[in-house]
Amino acid sequence: MRYKVVVSYDGSNYYGFQRQRNEKTIQGEIEKAIRRMSRFDIGIHASGRTDKGVHAKGQVFHFDCDLPITVDKWQEGLNKRLPLDIRIDKIKLVKDDFHARFDAKSKIYHYWFSKNELTAFNQNYFNYIKNLDFKIMEDCAKVFIGTHDFVSFTPKTEKETIKTIYNIQMKEYKDKVCFVFHGEGFLKYMIRSIIGNLIDCGLYKKNKNDLINMLSENRRTESSRTAEASGLYLYKVNY
Amino acid sequence: MRYKVVVSYDGSNYYGFQRQRNEKTIQGEIEKAIRRMSRFDIGIHASGRTDKGVHAKGQVFHFDCDLPITVDKWQEGLNKRLPLDIRIDKIKLVKDDFHARFDAKSKIYHYWFSKNELTAFNQNYFNYIKNLDFKIMEDCAKVFIGTHDFVSFTPKTEKETIKTIYNIQMKEYKDKVCFVFHGEGFLKYMIRSIIGNLIDCGLYKKNKNDLINMLSENRRTESSRTAEASGLYLYKVNY
Repeated sequence: MRYKVVVSYDGSNYYGFQRQRNEKTIQGEIEKAIRRMSRFDIGIHASGRTDKGVHAKGQVFHFDCDLPITVDKWQEGLNKRLPLDIRIDKIKLVKDDFHARFDAKSKIYHYWFSKNELTAFNQNYFNYIKNLDFKIMEDCAKVFIGTHDFVSFTPKTEKETIKTIYNIQMKEYKDKVCFVFHGEGFLKYMIRSIIGNLIDCGLYKKNKNDLINMLSENRRTESSRTAEASGLYLYKVNY
Repeated sequence: MRYKVVVSYDGSNYYGFQRQRNEKTIQGEIEKAIRRMSRFDIGIHASGRTDKGVHAKGQVFHFDCDLPITVDKWQEGLNKRLPLDIRIDKIKLVKDDFHARFDAKSKIYHYWFSKNELTAFNQNYFNYIKNLDFKIMEDCAKVFIGTHDFVSFTPKTEKETIKTIYNIQMKEYKDKVCFVFHGEGFLKYMIRSIIGNLIDCGLYKKNKNDLINMLSENRRTESSRTAEASGLYLYKVNY
């Protein structure tokens, strides 16, 4: 039997999603919880990785297990065995050919800024840069919508760098700002690199034309610094 | 020169306030930052300790240093050297006989409940108990206001157990509830023990008379379980 699972996690204290031998990771903790519950060594398959410090409100993974355990028991049992900063929000039985990664149609990420200096309590959950012009950032973000070669916005190790972003929306609240990215999928560091370049626009160090050139040149050009992981949330995976 | 410092911290990842040889503590981190900045081994003196997992929005400490460093430079320099979950919010020069502990006139603590199940993101910052009757808890809390022998609400190691609580107020928000404690000072675990007993009242396992009896008997009686540290914040120290 194959299970599809929606999980949320506070990535602050983890070395990213992917299992690693000597580091505490989200995947490692989930697989440990499944092992404790089932007594089997069962691997999980996620919609994709998230980096160190990145959060998720709706990461999705699947796993296979034929034990006679109901979805409610799975959820309850896993949440009992997982650290409190990793929570299973939903589990359902799916067809045996469902695949969390290959069947993902699109993903939504959120990137959160605080308009005020960060405190001891929110520094893991927002980014803050002094004197950002969010209106400029909102306008410049439009450049990235559509199908582009994002080669300048990802490490050299990524091979297929053409991706489609369906939409980037900025939502402004009293003391916070959220950039909502909706795309078919995103390359390693791609959102944080886009945000890093938008930050430079918001500080008047770059302008819209610089971004257009970076995208159209179709070769690796100098990108801005990748923005902090703390503001980034994998919000939803659509199937 | 003596400095009075107001500091806020997220206690989630610390082994309490007090310096300990092999554990990461708030005091340890602050003294390390002072050492890095001044090249001197300078001890700090706080208004009191907070336990493992307890937070502070307005802890106060003092320290002595005669180096020609302005208060702004101290604040900037310490914040640069401190982990981001410990933030120096204010520093000022005080008279040489000021003492953060002995001069404290009263303290305000907050204890926060969530009305909804905790998430991966707020589990370090709230307490949640299913089906709590907050109105009952608000009413029962009144029992503790005034001068009482709190011997049943603190470990045996505490000697002077008579304390005065000036006020306990419950503030209710849409999805959160905060109990505000204002008292001359609080014994070890005292607030969490009071909250633990109030939780039992909110679950109809104890009533107001049980609390009155516990307070009036003036000897150690069976107290309820100490409530989670995660909901507790040292909010302000008054001088």
